[in-house]
Amino acid sequence: MRSALAVLGMLSLATASIWPVPSVLVNGTTNTAVGSAQITAWYLSSPILAAAIRRYNMIIESEAFTPPADYDKVAPNFEGTLTGMSIVVDHEDEALSLDTDESYVLDVPVSGVAKLRAKSIYGAMRGMETYSQLLVSRGGFRFIKGTPIHIEDRPMLQHRGLLLDTARNYYPLGDILRTLDAMSFNKLNVFHWHIVDSQSWPVESKSFPNLQKQGAYAPNMQYSYEDVQEVIEYARERGIRVIPEFDMPGHTYAVGLSKPKIMSCLNKQPNWDKFAAEPPSGQLNIAKRAALDFASKMVGEYAQLFTDNVFHLGGDEVNLECWKDDPDVSTYLAANPEESVESLLVNFYAKLYSAVSAQNKTGMAWEETLFRTGYAPPKKTIIQSWIDQASIPKTVAKGYRSIASPASAYYLDCGHGAWLATAGNSWCDPFKTWMHIYNFDPLANITNVEQRKLVIGAEVALWSEQSDSTVLDARLWPRAAAMAETSWSGKVNANGHVRTTKEVLQRLHNQRFRMVGRGIMAEPLQPLWCARNPGACLVP
Amino acid sequence: MRSALAVLGMLSLATASIWPVPSVLVNGTTNTAVGSAQITAWYLSSPILAAAIRRYNMIIESEAFTPPADYDKVAPNFEGTLTGMSIVVDHEDEALSLDTDESYVLDVPVSGVAKLRAKSIYGAMRGMETYSQLLVSRGGFRFIKGTPIHIEDRPMLQHRGLLLDTARNYYPLGDILRTLDAMSFNKLNVFHWHIVDSQSWPVESKSFPNLQKQGAYAPNMQYSYEDVQEVIEYARERGIRVIPEFDMPGHTYAVGLSKPKIMSCLNKQPNWDKFAAEPPSGQLNIAKRAALDFASKMVGEYAQLFTDNVFHLGGDEVNLECWKDDPDVSTYLAANPEESVESLLVNFYAKLYSAVSAQNKTGMAWEETLFRTGYAPPKKTIIQSWIDQASIPKTVAKGYRSIASPASAYYLDCGHGAWLATAGNSWCDPFKTWMHIYNFDPLANITNVEQRKLVIGAEVALWSEQSDSTVLDARLWPRAAAMAETSWSGKVNANGHVRTTKEVLQRLHNQRFRMVGRGIMAEPLQPLWCARNPGACLVP
Repeated sequence: MRSALAVLGMLSLATASIWPVPSVLVNGTTNTAVGSAQITAWYLSSPILAAAIRRYNMIIESEAFTPPADYDKVAPNFEGTLTGMSIVVDHEDEALSLDTDESYVLDVPVSGVAKLRAKSIYGAMRGMETYSQLLVSRGGFRFIKGTPIHIEDRPMLQHRGLLLDTARNYYPLGDILRTLDAMSFNKLNVFHWHIVDSQSWPVESKSFPNLQKQGAYAPNMQYSYEDVQEVIEYARERGIRVIPEFDMPGHTYAVGLSKPKIMSCLNKQPNWDKFAAEPPSGQLNIAKRAALDFASKMVGEYAQLFTDNVFHLGGDEVNLECWKDDPDVSTYLAANPEESVESLLVNFYAKLYSAVSAQNKTGMAWEETLFRTGYAPPKKTIIQSWIDQASIPKTVAKGYRSIASPASAYYLDCGHGAWLATAGNSWCDPFKTWMHIYNFDPLANITNVEQRKLVIGAEVALWSEQSDSTVLDARLWPRAAAMAETSWSGKVNANGHVRTTKEVLQRLHNQRFRMVGRGIMAEPLQPLWCARNPGACLVP
Repeated sequence: MRSALAVLGMLSLATASIWPVPSVLVNGTTNTAVGSAQITAWYLSSPILAAAIRRYNMIIESEAFTPPADYDKVAPNFEGTLTGMSIVVDHEDEALSLDTDESYVLDVPVSGVAKLRAKSIYGAMRGMETYSQLLVSRGGFRFIKGTPIHIEDRPMLQHRGLLLDTARNYYPLGDILRTLDAMSFNKLNVFHWHIVDSQSWPVESKSFPNLQKQGAYAPNMQYSYEDVQEVIEYARERGIRVIPEFDMPGHTYAVGLSKPKIMSCLNKQPNWDKFAAEPPSGQLNIAKRAALDFASKMVGEYAQLFTDNVFHLGGDEVNLECWKDDPDVSTYLAANPEESVESLLVNFYAKLYSAVSAQNKTGMAWEETLFRTGYAPPKKTIIQSWIDQASIPKTVAKGYRSIASPASAYYLDCGHGAWLATAGNSWCDPFKTWMHIYNFDPLANITNVEQRKLVIGAEVALWSEQSDSTVLDARLWPRAAAMAETSWSGKVNANGHVRTTKEVLQRLHNQRFRMVGRGIMAEPLQPLWCARNPGACLVP
C-alpha cells in the first residue's frame, strides 16, 4: 500500500506542507486557484460527520495561512481552479475505538472538485484536516501548490495520545476543548484524561458527592457530568477518544478529604517522601473492605460516564511503606497471617479489574501494575510504559500491548527544574525538545514481528505540577506535534529514508504558525528570520 | 538605617506578604478593616506622580487578592479601620536616573490614615506598590493583617533590570507595556531594550528609513517613534528607565539588508558558525569610513529618541574571522600595514563612544568590549557581565561598574534545548529555576568594599530565539521576581539571617497569584495544593 513517497523538498517546500506527513503523496507542478474550497458529502446521515464538515468549512473560510517562507512572495500563475471538495465515506458508523479505520484517499485535480474517500467518518476527518492544510494564501490569493495531488494516508499507530493532568493544577473546560482542537490539527486520537490525583478531585461523582465537594479546589474548579459529556462529545466530533484515568490505589490523598477511614498514610509530614513520590501522601487502605467497595463502585460509576471502551486504572508509584506503616493494616495482617501487603494489593487489583470487565471495558494501567506487583492483569490490558524505553520491549515480550510514554522522551513537563523549593534539576531533566521527541522510536529494540504489533500507541504527557492554564498551549505545542507525526507517519519514508529533524523543521514551522493562526499559543521554534529562510538556521 | 527586621513567618505569613521584602518591617498583631484605601497626596505638582496615584487607586479599587493559603479562611476580627493613605514627597523632581532615591517609609496605623513618605516621586511609587500588597481579601472583606505596620525600605542595587530582545522575535507594543507593569509590581527599575539584532531591525529610523523598511519583519512589526516614546513615558510613570541597546559591530546582519556595502560576512552559509555566534552572520565593516559614519549618526539619532542618560552599545560576540575573511578589509590592511583588524576595532569603538559622549550620555557595553579588544572604554562606562560569574569581580577589579547578568543564573531563555534543529541541549542549559536565580549573589567573591560598590546592578535577560508573544509572560514571571527581590532586598535580613528559598516560597506563591490577578500570565510554581498548604511541599 505504501508506494513511493514524493520526497517533500527539505528546504523549498514547493509542494504541500502537511503535518503529519502522509504515507503517500504524489504531486504535480501546477498551481490551482481556489474558486471554492467548500466541502460537501455525497450522502450524509452521520451528525458527527456533518459537524466535522461544518467545522472544516469554517476553518477553510476563515483561514488565510501563508507559510512563513512565502511571506514576501507574490501569487503564482494558476493553471486551474478548485471548485470544492466532495467526500465519500464507505460507512457512517459512528463507533470510535482503537480499531477505527482512519485511512483516507484524497485527490486534488488541477481543475474541478477534489475528492476525499474514507472507510469511516473518522478517516474522513483526517482527510479534511489534510485538505485544509493544502490551502495557502499569498498576495490576496488562495491556492493549492503542486497539483494534481494524490494522497493515500493512514496511521502507523492506532493510539496516538496526549495525557493531561487536571489534578495537580486545574484547567478550565475551555482549555480542554481548545486542546482537543489542537490535537485534531495533528491527527492525534486519544485524550488521556488524568483527571484526579492526590492534590485534587475535580470531577463530579453522583455516588460519592463529597469527593468533589471536598476534593475539588473550588466550586468553580470542577468538571460536572455535563462538562465531561461535553468533552467526550467535542472529542468524538474530532475523532478523539477520551480515556479517563482514575489512578489507584496510590495518588489518592484527595479521596481522604471525604473518606479518611479508607485511607492509609494520609499527608504524612514532613517525611512524606517515605510514603509517596510527591506530597501529599495517601493511598487507599487495601486491607479494608470498605476501600475495595469504594473503588469498585467508583469505577462502576465512571465507567458509565466515560463512554470509551478503555478505562485507565492507574497503578503507578504505589508505595508499600505506606501500608506497612498503617496500624489497621498491621492489625489485619496479624489476624490473617496467610496474607501480606503484596497479597492484599493483588487482591485489590483483581477486584478492580473485575469491576472494569463487568462493564465490558478494557483496563489500562501504568507499567508498575504488571512489573512491580505479583498481579497478572488480564491479557487484553493495555500497559502504559513510562519509566524508560526498555519498559516497552519488556511489556510486549510478556505478550501485553504497550503504549509508549517514556518519561525520557515524551514527558512535556520535564526540564523546568525541581519544584520543591530547592535549587536543582527535576528528576526527568532535561527539557524534551521537539527534536528529542521526534527522534524517539517507540519500536526501538523490538525485532520480533508479533511483538512489534503489540506496540499499539504512543502518548505524550503533561503532568501539571508546574503547569496550569497560564502556560498550557506552549507546554504542549508544537512539541506534541512532533510525536503526532512519528506516531501517524512513522519516521521512515516509503523509500526507506529516515526523516531527520533538519528535514522536517520547515514543515513544523508551518504547522506551528498554522496552529497560532487557529488560536493555539504554540511556542516558537526559532527566530522568525529562520522560519522565513529555510535551511539558513541549521548546524553546519 | 537597617534596624531589626521582624522576620517574616516562614509558613504562616500571619503578617504582610510583600515582594520584594522590605528592609525594615515592624508590625503589630491586630487586623485593620479597609474603610477606604484610596491614596491622596498632600501637595501634588508632578503629573507623573499624579498618574501613579491614579494607577494605584485603580489597582486598589479593583483588586481582591486572597493569598492562596487563606482560601478557606473567614474574615478575622477587626480592631480598627483604615480610612485612606496620604503621601508626602520631599521633592517632586521628575528626573529619573541611576541616582534616583527610591527609599520610602510607610506607616499603617490600627485605625485612621496610612502615611507614606518618600524623598522622590519614584520612592513614592515603590511605597504605593508595597501598600497595595498589604491589602488582603477574605470572605468578602478587605483588610490589612498585623497592624500597626512600620516599613522602612530602599533598594540594595541601583540598577535592577530586565532585558527583552525584540529582534529575534517581535513583541507587540502591548507586550512591552504589560511587562513594564509587571516590572513595577516587583520594583524593577530598568527596561533594557535589546531592540535590534541580526534577525530584524524593528525600530523606526528617520536618518536611515530603509533600516526598518527592509529590516523589520513586517510593516506591523515595527516600533515607530511614537511607540518608543510611549514605552519611555509608560516606563517613567512606573519609575522604570529605558536603556536602549544598539548592538554593534556584531549582530548587525539586519543593517545589511539596506546597507550591504558597509557590511562584512553577510549571511555566510552554510558555515555561518565561522563568522557569528548564530545565523545570520554579518558585522559592520570596520575598515570602511562609511560604516563608522553610519554607526555614529545612528547613535546620534537614537540617543535623542531614547532619553535615558545611559546608552548601550552592545559589543558582544564580535567575530574577527568575519573581517579577516573580507576582501575589502584585506585590501585596506594591505594598503595600511600599520593597522590590523584589532586596531580597526579599537578605532571603531573610540569613535562610537565619542558619539555617545557627545550626547552627554554614559556608554554601557557587554563585557567583551572591555576584555576582548585592545580598547579601554571611558572609565564611567557600565559593563554588563554575562559570560560567567567570574566576570563580575574581574570587571570591578579593573575599576569599572558592573551589571550582573551571568548566563548561568540570569538568562531566562536557557533550558529550552538547542534551536538549530538538532537534538541536544542549549549552550546555557539547564533551565534557570527561580531557586537558582534567588540563590545567585552578584557580590560573590568580591571582598574589597570599594569594589563591591561598583556592582551597581543586576539584570535578567530574555533572549528571544525561542520566545515570542505566545510565551512572554511565563518565560519572565515569576522567575524575574526572584532577582527582583535579591537585587532590591539583598539576601540577608537585618539580623544577619540569609533567607532560603524554602522560606520565601510562600511569599513568592502570593506574588505569583497576585500577578496573575493583575493580568500577568506568570507560570505556577507548584500544584495549587502546595500554595494552599504552606510548608507541605518542601524537600524533607
